[in-house]
Amino acid sequence: MGSIGMTVLGVDPGLTRCGVGVVTGSVGRPLTLVDVAVVRTPPNLDIARRLHQLEQALEARITEHQPDVVAVERVFAQHNVRTVMGTAQASAIAMVVAARHGIPVHLHTPSEVKAAVTGSGRADKAQVAQMVTRLLRLSETPKPADATDALALAICHVWRGGAAQRLASAVAVAGGRS
Amino acid sequence: MGSIGMTVLGVDPGLTRCGVGVVTGSVGRPLTLVDVAVVRTPPNLDIARRLHQLEQALEARITEHQPDVVAVERVFAQHNVRTVMGTAQASAIAMVVAARHGIPVHLHTPSEVKAAVTGSGRADKAQVAQMVTRLLRLSETPKPADATDALALAICHVWRGGAAQRLASAVAVAGGRS
Repeated sequence: MGSIGMTVLGVDPGLTRCGVGVVTGSVGRPLTLVDVAVVRTPPNLDIARRLHQLEQALEARITEHQPDVVAVERVFAQHNVRTVMGTAQASAIAMVVAARHGIPVHLHTPSEVKAAVTGSGRADKAQVAQMVTRLLRLSETPKPADATDALALAICHVWRGGAAQRLASAVAVAGGRS
Repeated sequence: MGSIGMTVLGVDPGLTRCGVGVVTGSVGRPLTLVDVAVVRTPPNLDIARRLHQLEQALEARITEHQPDVVAVERVFAQHNVRTVMGTAQASAIAMVVAARHGIPVHLHTPSEVKAAVTGSGRADKAQVAQMVTRLLRLSETPKPADATDALALAICHVWRGGAAQRLASAVAVAGGRS
């Protein structure tokens, strides 16, 4: 328990560009990049078909990588009003594809992700990209920012989710003993 | 052409309550109620599983009724910020299920729907419910409001979409002649 790394598929949701990053690892051990991609859907297509294309792309990646967890950026309505609807809808597709496969979904806020990988919840995109590159020991920074954001989400979950899982296990063991 | 009625499945999207109404008809002919339901998902469940339950319920109804069109309420970010995310996510599920079946999706704004069934874009829910009951010749008003809103969307599409389709056909015919 805890020694086997988990595979996390991170999703930075979006209709025009949806970042998908797969990382394996566990707390206190080196992280490994498994896959990173940006799914794009044509802005001239109607939204239903764009969501369907996104669904197919996410379905393929989840089937391929069989992640233990899907980590999705938590979308807030307060954000940019123009883009928030597409982001919310893209995140719904990521969540439903994961749920269909019986894979747990965890949401992390942008500031939780930034804090996890850089130590500061107010870090900028460049800083996040730099830390993702360093933590995954890559020779160059994945592009565009949606790719590094998705990887940052996955890393954030390995660290935060890993800790939460150990706590849950410890509580379960303690509960079993009492 | 135009004499065969179309079957429209209307969706009033929501996570807690999602209205689904199926209507057949064509412009200038009586409308027929085929089905009406409200899909509910438990608020204590995580959002991914709620979206998955909604997906399964919509999948079952679309498979059963094989609508020609799925009409979904267009969600605006300006609305109630607390509920808009769930509404946007539920609408994404409705759209992707329809797209997966190759069924065209059309979005109508709340004021378009109100104007179509009551003559006024600012009609209240009670007025919409009353007109839906009358237009479908029902002995009592379907409850809750999500049910009548979904039926109003379907009716709106039969009338507006029907007109748009005849126009498109006329243009195609005229284009063919020239």
